[in-house]
Amino acid sequence: MNMLEVLESPEHSDFSRMFRERRFLKNNMIFTPEEAGNQIFVVKRGRIRVFLADEDKEFNLAILKEGDAYTTHTRASLQALTDTTILVSEMQTFGRQAADSPYFSLATLTVLGEHLRNTLNIINRLAFKDIKMRLCDFLLQEARDKGEENRAGVVVSTGLSVKQIADFVGSTRQTVSTLLNEMQKDGVLTRLSRGKYVIHELGELENGASSSQRPTMVRRRAD
Amino acid sequence: MNMLEVLESPEHSDFSRMFRERRFLKNNMIFTPEEAGNQIFVVKRGRIRVFLADEDKEFNLAILKEGDAYTTHTRASLQALTDTTILVSEMQTFGRQAADSPYFSLATLTVLGEHLRNTLNIINRLAFKDIKMRLCDFLLQEARDKGEENRAGVVVSTGLSVKQIADFVGSTRQTVSTLLNEMQKDGVLTRLSRGKYVIHELGELENGASSSQRPTMVRRRAD
Repeated sequence: MNMLEVLESPEHSDFSRMFRERRFLKNNMIFTPEEAGNQIFVVKRGRIRVFLADEDKEFNLAILKEGDAYTTHTRASLQALTDTTILVSEMQTFGRQAADSPYFSLATLTVLGEHLRNTLNIINRLAFKDIKMRLCDFLLQEARDKGEENRAGVVVSTGLSVKQIADFVGSTRQTVSTLLNEMQKDGVLTRLSRGKYVIHELGELENGASSSQRPTMVRRRAD
Repeated sequence: MNMLEVLESPEHSDFSRMFRERRFLKNNMIFTPEEAGNQIFVVKRGRIRVFLADEDKEFNLAILKEGDAYTTHTRASLQALTDTTILVSEMQTFGRQAADSPYFSLATLTVLGEHLRNTLNIINRLAFKDIKMRLCDFLLQEARDKGEENRAGVVVSTGLSVKQIADFVGSTRQTVSTLLNEMQKDGVLTRLSRGKYVIHELGELENGASSSQRPTMVRRRAD
């Protein structure tokens, strides 16, 4: 579901009036948890990094792209990865209006539900997998979400530096760089350009991402 | 916000009719991700453990109690910790009705928003903190959420075994047991009974939970 298309359609002009446009230059912060804001926004143009910040570390949660929606009331920080334009509304204003519109209630529920699913995927990765498994899992998810098949395999354009990928899997630039080189040597993938990889063997990534190399146990539960 | 009170009030009988009662005995599974269900439920009685399951490990996400709401469409598993009664509805049916009711749309948004906040807290813990910090952070949050002050300090009734606490912080029973014993020896807390602790020094937990022992740096950002 793309909220941008909805906001730009004439029949929802009541809603679009509640949103104002804001622009951010590449690398500028859009929101930090120190701000007490409670806003909902839709990305009109550009890409936004959603991350948790510790005193001297960062952990990436998601990259928002055109059409994605997000709310600012969490502990996550938001940074423009490219020159970015967002449409933003106060959550309170939006909530009052959305309550009267089945469409927007469900849209907002869907957005929150997707973010919840994403965070559970991340917890799964952090709780059960070592760095190499997490990297395989991350690349696999990127390939499934936005990979494009060609003769050599599946092309994934992450648009991310190695450091930024490291901040997705909770590791350092050096470690992730070493792992990517190993995977290239093993014929799993080839680096095409910054952040762009062709994955030759999705199956290898699947094996690498699964939390155990042992044969899968059949789990039984009491009925 | 307690959705149970709402469901039990006469003015929302339209809604309560969409929910049916289901009972589970202690330790029984209420939902596993292998089931394709997409339901929303409210806890009427009992306590439910929400967790991620790997082949041979588990990671606890939350304990639901009376009045809490949850949806089953994620990868999380649900287990009755005590004899439990839930009121359950198909999400689709609920969504159609809720779309017409400002109250239920907002209630559902609030529930999802709270779960999202909880998962971000967990990611923060996993990404930035070692086991001891996570344990301090976990106890601190329990104390803040449901601690009761008495002369000796703040009494926290987690209702959890040491193994279950370990599954909240991503560690083993042995490690968490050792850490709790150390904290007792250091006078930070005293174990009263299974899962029940009195915390003498909340400040010690705060120090232990912060990700750095160094003085907090003042972070500056370009405006």
